Amino acid sequence: MNLAAMSPSDILALGARAGAMLDELARISAEPSRLVRLYLTPEHRRAADLVAGWMRQAGMEVSEDALGTVRGRFSAGASPDDAKAPRLLVGSHIDTVVDAGRYDGPLGVVAGILAVDHFSAGGPALPFGIDVLAFGDEEGSRFPSTLATSAACVGAFDPATLGFADRNGVTFAEALKAYGKNAQDIAAAAYRRDEVAGFVEVHIEQGPVLEQENEPLGVVTGIVGQSRLRVVVTGEAGHAGTVPMELRRDALAGAAELILAVERIARELAADRVVATVGRIEAEPGAVNIIPARVAFTVDVRAMSDEVRRSAVEQIESEGWRVVEARGLQVAFEPFHEAVTAECDLTLQNTLAAAIADLGHRAPRLPSGAGHDAQMMAKLCRSAMLFVRCRGGVSHNPAEYASPADIGLAIAALIRFIERFAPGQA
Amino acid sequence: MNLAAMSPSDILALGARAGAMLDELARISAEPSRLVRLYLTPEHRRAADLVAGWMRQAGMEVSEDALGTVRGRFSAGASPDDAKAPRLLVGSHIDTVVDAGRYDGPLGVVAGILAVDHFSAGGPALPFGIDVLAFGDEEGSRFPSTLATSAACVGAFDPATLGFADRNGVTFAEALKAYGKNAQDIAAAAYRRDEVAGFVEVHIEQGPVLEQENEPLGVVTGIVGQSRLRVVVTGEAGHAGTVPMELRRDALAGAAELILAVERIARELAADRVVATVGRIEAEPGAVNIIPARVAFTVDVRAMSDEVRRSAVEQIESEGWRVVEARGLQVAFEPFHEAVTAECDLTLQNTLAAAIADLGHRAPRLPSGAGHDAQMMAKLCRSAMLFVRCRGGVSHNPAEYASPADIGLAIAALIRFIERFAPGQA
Repeated sequence: MNLAAMSPSDILALGARAGAMLDELARISAEPSRLVRLYLTPEHRRAADLVAGWMRQAGMEVSEDALGTVRGRFSAGASPDDAKAPRLLVGSHIDTVVDAGRYDGPLGVVAGILAVDHFSAGGPALPFGIDVLAFGDEEGSRFPSTLATSAACVGAFDPATLGFADRNGVTFAEALKAYGKNAQDIAAAAYRRDEVAGFVEVHIEQGPVLEQENEPLGVVTGIVGQSRLRVVVTGEAGHAGTVPMELRRDALAGAAELILAVERIARELAADRVVATVGRIEAEPGAVNIIPARVAFTVDVRAMSDEVRRSAVEQIESEGWRVVEARGLQVAFEPFHEAVTAECDLTLQNTLAAAIADLGHRAPRLPSGAGHDAQMMAKLCRSAMLFVRCRGGVSHNPAEYASPADIGLAIAALIRFIERFAPGQA
Repeated sequence: MNLAAMSPSDILALGARAGAMLDELARISAEPSRLVRLYLTPEHRRAADLVAGWMRQAGMEVSEDALGTVRGRFSAGASPDDAKAPRLLVGSHIDTVVDAGRYDGPLGVVAGILAVDHFSAGGPALPFGIDVLAFGDEEGSRFPSTLATSAACVGAFDPATLGFADRNGVTFAEALKAYGKNAQDIAAAAYRRDEVAGFVEVHIEQGPVLEQENEPLGVVTGIVGQSRLRVVVTGEAGHAGTVPMELRRDALAGAAELILAVERIARELAADRVVATVGRIEAEPGAVNIIPARVAFTVDVRAMSDEVRRSAVEQIESEGWRVVEARGLQVAFEPFHEAVTAECDLTLQNTLAAAIADLGHRAPRLPSGAGHDAQMMAKLCRSAMLFVRCRGGVSHNPAEYASPADIGLAIAALIRFIERFAPGQA
């Protein structure tokens, strides 16, 4: 069946088939009442085996690399030359957060398998091969690492990760060995640049933009860089009844002013798609009748432009200094995480947009505010992401939901993208 | 020795004597490394016995009422008629907070004892008697009650208090029985109005005003009323990276705006001595990368005028409604404590001010932002409070400190107040 022949009901059927596979994966959990599937656990093993079975049914040869990434190799080249051409990589991850939804990650793996199945089962011959990848460490839910499995594929795995321990004290290295892998083989997991023509990942949006735009699919422009800071404002404790307002050095009032400044600075930079969030806050001593002496809170700043993001952080810090100066407080800024922006390849963005247009839809372009394997794969090759509308923008939650209709469209668009994909493009 | 003959070195000696007594009391604690003396405990028993001994040495007859308040009765009337005249009550409390300082409470008891000692040991004869009272439940550190012991003295004890339990599940009634008291006798602890001419309490300021004014002593104008609310702001959780600023319903940003409004409203009412404090705050779910869905915080509002205080609370609530309306949030205000203002008697204020002037000092007038037994005693009779400067305004803390010089002046002023006191005044 080629795309021209794909009717709306065919697309819905594709979505329903994907939905059934996602349901089957979602039944593989460490806990009966919620979805928890962490890296290098028995649940990971079962999910990897299920995925490997689907890959084989879709006509792929299956292997696993040293970090457990399942690789389905599809070689449908029409000529022997095509078999040597750089390959298109398609994939996402099969690990989850604790109490997860069923779409974040698995959707991209299932979409890749069903797209390959389309070509394997009688679609047009392709002048390049496809590898479908099912990564295992994207969420960072077990170890304080993230993107370790895609890092191995691009040759960027940091050996220090092997020493990271989970909350039971089991190290990454120990878990890997128990999973039957050999850390010596990690270097060999890296693709050579000349083997790869590009990477594409289908993923739920995890935000409300497509829902607001009333469009099922979107093209990701890039994956935002991120700065995280811990801010500590220090004032002086005092009796809530006996210290007049003008003599107070209230750390919480100062923190409140700075929290509003964080919001204002991000809003002023909205044209640059800056977002900034204060997610955690603690006030000490924390009694109803004592003026807070010390408030600690976190700031998470993200932007498509690293320069704009760093400028936003600088503005937040300088606003912080102004606030504490005016209030007789002190402030400390402690950065604890930074990731630079990963741009999505413009040619691949345009190919995705054309594929979506082939299905009769607009293709809003939007940045990804969340991190993804695609940002790691971008270190190796041209990378692109197709976002799928999800209800209410909700993710990392059992309420996470993408409709079978939207999922069917996403897979149809991925098929069309593969048809349009030209490995030789710059 | 009469006051006219009291030299600066006599006053310092008085302060040093008081300091030694306060030190001795401070050694009576439930814990070796910090001061903890809770109501109806073995420590309370030992402190009460020590105080009773000092009262006897100062020429008083000692009794204990049904709630354990130690009462030292001094009858130095020059004529039989004077013995029947209404009595002046002087006192404060001997219970403490956990990890307390040594001045908050005991200073007022020791000052009363040393003032009586002055008259007992050859001071001028008085036309009225004096009762020194050592209350046991002012801090509310053991049971969720406060001022229970002074409430019994004024006939305002709430029997429901007997059912209150401490953190070990021991009820007020059980603790009272174990202390050797009979709840049946509580009603009899109440003074009759015609027995009492007034109440005066010496206490550390617990605030920085006298230090700022560079004066050792101040006259309290009244004890502020208090409103406490729990405020819950509800928005919507979301991914810190994927939800654009304009689509957020961030409960913490809304709470921050309201916290600043609380501060602003209190500052605007500074002429009315309004203070407002947000002391506790909790944000949920409390993750670095999740927009807060729900923030709960406390507001403590105090003012000398009940009307002004209620108006401040109304302004805070109406500002809260405005903030949540503008931000698409929700808010709930849950009042959980309210106390009305207790005015100090103006004649007694003037007598205290005259006594302080006799010692060559100005007598700044200031409200008490903290609660005191005097606010309960005001239900029975004219009441007054003399505040003593304390270092940095610090209290409820081992760093609490009042100098022997200031304490000596406070006791000298109390003696002069007693000399000037006219029981018959309106």
